[in-house]
Amino acid sequence: MPTYKAPLRDIRFVMDELLDFPTHYAQLPNGDDASPEIVSAILQEGAKFTEEVLTPLNQVGDSQGCSYNEGVVTTPDGFKEAYQQYVEGGWPSMTQDPAYGGQGLPSSLGMVLNEMVCSANLSWGMYPGLSHGAMDVLLHHGTDAQKEMFLSKMVEGSWTGTMCLTEPHCGTDLGLIRTKAEPQADGTYAISGTKIFISAGEHDMSDNIVHLVLAKLPDAPGGSKGISLFVVPKFMPDAQGEAGERNGVQCGSIEHKMGIHGNSTCVMNFDGAQGYLIGEPHKGLSYMFVMMNAARIGVGMQGLGLTEVAYQNSLAYARDRLQMRSLNGPKFPEKAADPIIVHPDVRRMLLTQKAFAEGGRALIYYTAQLIDKVHAGGEDANEANELLGLLTPIVKAFLTEAGFEAANEGVQIYGGHGFIHEWGMEQFVRDSRITRLYEGTTGIQALDLLGRKILMSQGESLKRFTKQVHKFCKAEEGNSELAEFTTTLSQLNQEWGELTMQVGMKAMQNRDEVGAASVDYLMYSGYVTLAYFWAQTAKTAQTALANGTNETAFYQGKLATARFYFQKLLPRTRALVATMQTGADSLMAMEDEQFGLGFEI
Amino acid sequence: MPTYKAPLRDIRFVMDELLDFPTHYAQLPNGDDASPEIVSAILQEGAKFTEEVLTPLNQVGDSQGCSYNEGVVTTPDGFKEAYQQYVEGGWPSMTQDPAYGGQGLPSSLGMVLNEMVCSANLSWGMYPGLSHGAMDVLLHHGTDAQKEMFLSKMVEGSWTGTMCLTEPHCGTDLGLIRTKAEPQADGTYAISGTKIFISAGEHDMSDNIVHLVLAKLPDAPGGSKGISLFVVPKFMPDAQGEAGERNGVQCGSIEHKMGIHGNSTCVMNFDGAQGYLIGEPHKGLSYMFVMMNAARIGVGMQGLGLTEVAYQNSLAYARDRLQMRSLNGPKFPEKAADPIIVHPDVRRMLLTQKAFAEGGRALIYYTAQLIDKVHAGGEDANEANELLGLLTPIVKAFLTEAGFEAANEGVQIYGGHGFIHEWGMEQFVRDSRITRLYEGTTGIQALDLLGRKILMSQGESLKRFTKQVHKFCKAEEGNSELAEFTTTLSQLNQEWGELTMQVGMKAMQNRDEVGAASVDYLMYSGYVTLAYFWAQTAKTAQTALANGTNETAFYQGKLATARFYFQKLLPRTRALVATMQTGADSLMAMEDEQFGLGFEI
Repeated sequence: MPTYKAPLRDIRFVMDELLDFPTHYAQLPNGDDASPEIVSAILQEGAKFTEEVLTPLNQVGDSQGCSYNEGVVTTPDGFKEAYQQYVEGGWPSMTQDPAYGGQGLPSSLGMVLNEMVCSANLSWGMYPGLSHGAMDVLLHHGTDAQKEMFLSKMVEGSWTGTMCLTEPHCGTDLGLIRTKAEPQADGTYAISGTKIFISAGEHDMSDNIVHLVLAKLPDAPGGSKGISLFVVPKFMPDAQGEAGERNGVQCGSIEHKMGIHGNSTCVMNFDGAQGYLIGEPHKGLSYMFVMMNAARIGVGMQGLGLTEVAYQNSLAYARDRLQMRSLNGPKFPEKAADPIIVHPDVRRMLLTQKAFAEGGRALIYYTAQLIDKVHAGGEDANEANELLGLLTPIVKAFLTEAGFEAANEGVQIYGGHGFIHEWGMEQFVRDSRITRLYEGTTGIQALDLLGRKILMSQGESLKRFTKQVHKFCKAEEGNSELAEFTTTLSQLNQEWGELTMQVGMKAMQNRDEVGAASVDYLMYSGYVTLAYFWAQTAKTAQTALANGTNETAFYQGKLATARFYFQKLLPRTRALVATMQTGADSLMAMEDEQFGLGFEI
Repeated sequence: MPTYKAPLRDIRFVMDELLDFPTHYAQLPNGDDASPEIVSAILQEGAKFTEEVLTPLNQVGDSQGCSYNEGVVTTPDGFKEAYQQYVEGGWPSMTQDPAYGGQGLPSSLGMVLNEMVCSANLSWGMYPGLSHGAMDVLLHHGTDAQKEMFLSKMVEGSWTGTMCLTEPHCGTDLGLIRTKAEPQADGTYAISGTKIFISAGEHDMSDNIVHLVLAKLPDAPGGSKGISLFVVPKFMPDAQGEAGERNGVQCGSIEHKMGIHGNSTCVMNFDGAQGYLIGEPHKGLSYMFVMMNAARIGVGMQGLGLTEVAYQNSLAYARDRLQMRSLNGPKFPEKAADPIIVHPDVRRMLLTQKAFAEGGRALIYYTAQLIDKVHAGGEDANEANELLGLLTPIVKAFLTEAGFEAANEGVQIYGGHGFIHEWGMEQFVRDSRITRLYEGTTGIQALDLLGRKILMSQGESLKRFTKQVHKFCKAEEGNSELAEFTTTLSQLNQEWGELTMQVGMKAMQNRDEVGAASVDYLMYSGYVTLAYFWAQTAKTAQTALANGTNETAFYQGKLATARFYFQKLLPRTRALVATMQTGADSLMAMEDEQFGLGFEI
């Protein structure tokens, strides 16, 4: 069975040394509460809960899955009890508004906890995870009455939330939804329609489930501009604010999926269910984007979490499994064979996982700081929000692509055993496969990054980030020991801008050029972004070593991993640049009917 | 449910137009039987059997899996009956020696059939597939008595075979095996030990199962030079040659796997089971390599088969699913949205699948011709055998890596639906995952290619192939319409040799350089090899178009796909070259204990 140990030393490295969270917290209005002692306690308790409670349930969840019986969904053994412990530990309220019972700690601390949850038990983590997003929407766009009715219960964790967007015929293209909302005399709405792929749509872990549902009013304009958002509880709140009468929403079935078996993925049937309009009519999609953006970062975190746990178990196996001798002669002549960690290609896979895990952590914790700044408002908020907008599709798509690769390398390191259920490595592959799809596929993230975020801002949003990279490289210009990193990074940073210009110019002639370049462009951006964080990591490690430390091995390992990243992963940009530059022609030239002639005639 | 249609037009293209199988068959001693009429009948009947009988059982096999009860393994509903039809159709004997009841047709025809089987139902195909390899070993290394006892039954299909190599503590490193063979007074051997991961080790489809087992004699030298090969039947043949008394071999359990659920993966316990020595003592591994080499090509075929079926279903979905508008404005304004095949990134994924399927088919059918030539003996056999040795690890590893990518692109094209069992796309990912592992992982194939095949021959084996590529490019030098392909191919072909020299030079100083470069080198070799077949395909298509054809769309589609391959997939070599050239240092520099310090301190 796979194990998991919260990577507290590395989390500390990123928080205390690389990104200086203590100073960051000191500058936040709610930062006083995030004292070093509190942060430390959260890390320790979070590690304990995820290692001891969630990790052992991960394979149980996969093997048992959820079961469905006439509208009732039963979660795997232990899931409900673990959730109870989570509620009793006060975790749901940690970063929520004190006005509704929250502890008001910065969002970033919730994200750090979430990394551990994602490593320990992805399926379980989605129940509180979805709830979190729903709370955000209600807090920002709900009326006072709605907040009163729903938010406090959700903050304490006794009620959970969902987001109901997808329908059988539309996922990406929400303009096509058919779910209807009929205004009622009492000011509420009768919601009717079918939603699919609703994660945590029905389960046995909470007293009530609060659905946020996209639907169309009778007078709605066509397409995505005619979508409104409604809050539709499973049970209507009664006079005491408790879960009362059953509302007209039922789980029709649950999906049989490749992975995340422990999470219920529901078909939800709304049959005149009573709902309340959130905000203004026809603006639902923009409200939902609050939730979707947070969810996208959350899925990026899933990618990171799975990368980390795949790495930990791969490393343990590579140290333990004896097979063949080192190509340079026996390293452990006293053993029947050498442990496979001596083989260069096994090390390549381990280091790939390590570089993605630790580099990904730096990137996503950086976005966590941006989220804190956006929430804090004030003068930094705008700048932070723009940067966050740029980095969100990179975090979502790049870290999930990396997570899937890392999980697959885990299987590869285990060899045939990797394919066998009981070893647990194949579950990480199956679980991570969904992260490349939900909350917008990699292709959709790529269009968001290149089309919406970068080209629509005439490249301004990118410049905001590349300037920062440039500044870092410039500042280290005289640092010859860092030159192996900064020289390459500086070149790529410049190339990034040039590539953007090239695609932008081509796109003015032909919009398909954006779609043709987009995924290569996103992956390129991801590699360069991670290179920036690895260069900073190298700098931090170098400084620690220069200043004297009793953790020499830790910092030398950081430098070695940075070097690996620059030599073995970053060159992937060469292929991406080459394919990008060939443009759209080879994709668009083929006539649709020519595709299938090998088997159709 | 996924569908499958045998790609007969493309198979015809490769066999008749690209690789001129009619002439190839005319030059084989057993080629007369492979007349155009016979070939045509085999293709038609093979298509019918795989489309109508095997395809509908593929999801059944995945959902039900095999079940185990006290040593008895029951295959999924319909598997047994399908196998009966297969036997009645005379398929097992098609390419076998007429001396044992075979039809004596060239091996390549069996491979063509096997492609269809792999697309239709990978799990089912492994039952006869393993048997095929076992027959090869018995034919080449068995005594007359052994052939008499086992081969005829296997040729008619009433008995099946297995290969028993792996043990719990060793897979790659067979020198470590512990299974023992004690010589008995009657000249037989008592085999004792545990074998794992034995595909088709126990099942209900045949009257007897003939295991080929690696074991050690009491006086065996240590390591891989002390391994002998034994034939151990489940039931001892009785005086009439039928399955008689039960032998001392039992299936102890079956594995719960990520995929290929329909195939039984068995733990086999040998408890003093009666066995017969094959060939000479201590030479078992070399005999088994006959089987393993064939099996490796067979696994490459699995990669191809899954690429093809993933492509077919992705294409159907991409034409059907309406989502968003073309970036250049509506293509089907009368519909609610455009079919997703209009989107450049969806086309990128479809064309990747198509390029791997059709290019892979050309490559593997070419190796099928080499196998025919080796079987035929004669003056071409040596040359063919050398080329086959070079191409085997490329076929195995490159086509399975490509198959996994193609299957994943299938899931990606289906979006969220790709993750759902009933749509069938995720099964292709799970099934294809094993192909990168068994019969030697990609890493092992890479060491075989670079270390054993190329460097140990001082690069001679590679030159044999690059000369052929060079000759092709040279011959087309004046062909300006082909220059977009031959110019690049020619450069890569030269670079391939140079890279080999570079790695070889470095390896003389440090053997780890081989391991460090190997997987990048193998993938590079795969891309260049496929480029050669795509360039030849382009030439063939060009000629057909120039000569006048009523299938203009088919040949234009070939040219467009070749162009896509050169512009969008071949540039991946740029990253591989860049990473290869950074050598082993960044992999080997890190101390073992530095790997885990992020979570261990």
